Amino acid sequence: MSILTGMRVVESSAFVAVPLAGMTLAQMGADVIRFDLPQGGMDAKRWPVTRDGQSLFWAGMNKGKRSVALDVKSPRGREIAQEIICAPGPDAGLFITNLAVKGWTDYETLSARRKDLCMVQLRGDRNGRPAVDYTVNPALGFPTATGPKGSQEPVSHVLPAWDCIAGNMVVSGLLAAERHRLRTKAGQFVDLTLKDAAAAMLGNLGIIGEVQVNGQSREKHGNALYGAYGQDFVTADGRRVMVIALTARQWKNLMRVTGTEVDMAYLAGQLGRDLMQEGARWQSRHEITKVLAPWFAARRLTDFASDFDRAGVTWSVFRSFAEALAEDPDLSTENPMFREMDQPGIGRYLVPGTPFTFDGFGRDAPRPAPVLGQHTEEVLAEVARLSSGEIGKLMDAGVAMQGAGSLRLAS
Amino acid sequence: MSILTGMRVVESSAFVAVPLAGMTLAQMGADVIRFDLPQGGMDAKRWPVTRDGQSLFWAGMNKGKRSVALDVKSPRGREIAQEIICAPGPDAGLFITNLAVKGWTDYETLSARRKDLCMVQLRGDRNGRPAVDYTVNPALGFPTATGPKGSQEPVSHVLPAWDCIAGNMVVSGLLAAERHRLRTKAGQFVDLTLKDAAAAMLGNLGIIGEVQVNGQSREKHGNALYGAYGQDFVTADGRRVMVIALTARQWKNLMRVTGTEVDMAYLAGQLGRDLMQEGARWQSRHEITKVLAPWFAARRLTDFASDFDRAGVTWSVFRSFAEALAEDPDLSTENPMFREMDQPGIGRYLVPGTPFTFDGFGRDAPRPAPVLGQHTEEVLAEVARLSSGEIGKLMDAGVAMQGAGSLRLAS
Repeated sequence: MSILTGMRVVESSAFVAVPLAGMTLAQMGADVIRFDLPQGGMDAKRWPVTRDGQSLFWAGMNKGKRSVALDVKSPRGREIAQEIICAPGPDAGLFITNLAVKGWTDYETLSARRKDLCMVQLRGDRNGRPAVDYTVNPALGFPTATGPKGSQEPVSHVLPAWDCIAGNMVVSGLLAAERHRLRTKAGQFVDLTLKDAAAAMLGNLGIIGEVQVNGQSREKHGNALYGAYGQDFVTADGRRVMVIALTARQWKNLMRVTGTEVDMAYLAGQLGRDLMQEGARWQSRHEITKVLAPWFAARRLTDFASDFDRAGVTWSVFRSFAEALAEDPDLSTENPMFREMDQPGIGRYLVPGTPFTFDGFGRDAPRPAPVLGQHTEEVLAEVARLSSGEIGKLMDAGVAMQGAGSLRLAS
Repeated sequence: MSILTGMRVVESSAFVAVPLAGMTLAQMGADVIRFDLPQGGMDAKRWPVTRDGQSLFWAGMNKGKRSVALDVKSPRGREIAQEIICAPGPDAGLFITNLAVKGWTDYETLSARRKDLCMVQLRGDRNGRPAVDYTVNPALGFPTATGPKGSQEPVSHVLPAWDCIAGNMVVSGLLAAERHRLRTKAGQFVDLTLKDAAAAMLGNLGIIGEVQVNGQSREKHGNALYGAYGQDFVTADGRRVMVIALTARQWKNLMRVTGTEVDMAYLAGQLGRDLMQEGARWQSRHEITKVLAPWFAARRLTDFASDFDRAGVTWSVFRSFAEALAEDPDLSTENPMFREMDQPGIGRYLVPGTPFTFDGFGRDAPRPAPVLGQHTEEVLAEVARLSSGEIGKLMDAGVAMQGAGSLRLAS
């Protein structure tokens, strides 16, 4: 029993945002049915992949879902998909998609079958042009403000942040629409674009105002935390740490633990600035860094790590992904979010469940991603309510495919 | 009338994630009441700021909310805040916070006042250590995988992506909890940490599997799209573009529009790889780039921009924030999400509303952020149901503060 147990969501998707939305709902307890072509969707082989071509990405993004393999290029396959999307049930009739709507999965068509359907569609941009995280991000300016000061090279992010944000918005949009349906019985079509989700954030963070009101376009500031104090330092043993003094308390903690109160007071006097103000810290960041850098350069990470933790300093070590997994207990089974889990076709490794804890429900262990088509038969029988004879015919005709064994796709 | 009209959410917050959650709910139509100290919260002066110190950040993150200024360091102020959080109403009793819980806003205390309270708390990490976006990100590995290949310098992101993700998760968590309450009358405490939200994504994206299953820790690959083909190119007029060939269709479009089908076929033969496979494109990315780079170097942006759009190529220009605002119609009032709006204390500029369109409701225009304490009187009267005499006394005693005019904080 989880917070969304009983809810059924159907997903037609690929890549990050909508698969993430479906998985988030599945990890909250919803029955999430993803349908794909029998040869797999566009993201079936998305990297990273194992040495024999199994997608670690697909396994990561589809945990806990049911997989139906259906040839939706055929009329009969489409009809069955529509049947699954629009199947009865007060907690069903919920559909999320980021695939181009080609008539047969548009809201008009589907809501003719089920009037109270709630559907969230994520598109690239409002004009219907293709847009992905890796194009939206450069278009809006972030790469030109990322990386070492003075460099002319734009730096794109590695985390598909806009996809992750939009994916979580798909969840919110669906839950908001279903809330409305619970109260009014009315369905809802929810439209969202990746570009608009990103463009809104540009405004929300004050960056549009910075350009239009202040006439300034933010430039690269290396790893400095914009507008307050936050900086990276290299230690005596060649590690690198990030240290934050965004709030007054964080600033006081940092000065105390490094014993730099007097130096900073002198600096404040020299500069004629009140360094308790975050804006003054930002304006004085280079001078502050000059005071702190020798402190870090003279110490190994282990010389100060526990002191920093005890003093409540807001800081962290820079790590590679491998170092993070080797060093950080939050990335281990010490963290109740994680389990060592067998993923069919891939093997045993550390897998996260939901980051949410809903009290009273406890925390569910993560479930593996399905093998492609693993649930075709049961979904066709239970949800589309087809007879076993009919299901057999569909399998023979290649309209539906039952997956078995492991997720092994031709490579 | 909007999708969440009638819902009331109370917010005690600062900075990005929970303010963003509250604003997202407000822009969906909820009545969101944020309370702050009379001198403003920790983020009252967060940069970017205007020349006279008004926070463009605060204005961006608090649009459409009601603001109550209350001295919650005083017992009476706390009691009133609790009264507001726990006020009756079937669509009220919803509370979101990212501020350290100090007894008086913990779930136990609050749910004693309102048994069916739904509360979402965002914390830094599961151990109660301070953690912010700018420490979580280096700790988990992304900066070491960001930036130019071969560079040893980690590159932190500028977008507080984890905050934006977690903020949207706060919305989902609250809506899921309230959905459960609508059905069972039971309240719910929802716990979420920024670090877990990020750590889960590391697993979801397949990066944990890459380390543990493949024994590989992803390194810097510049602006290349990992695992398929996506690369930046410099044009004859010194502009830079990002070009994506993640899917087979995108790859075909790119070859066609650049007339490189024959060159790529030859290359595929030379390398003995099927470039229709995304993994083969990734392995051949340097060779593919060598074919394409001269094409872009020989052309100005305007020479191919419309051809690319017509051909459905997935691409974009790299822009500074100022260039994005000058060039991109999606960042203008041509986009129905945006309005030119007067923000008290700041002036007129381009402001986004919600990126969602819920059909049947249309799209609401964005509303300004409140002046600090702008709604103190009305909320104390309507929600906490205090008499005007009592409100007057609270104002005189400095326990409550009514904001007026513009958001001008002592700097």
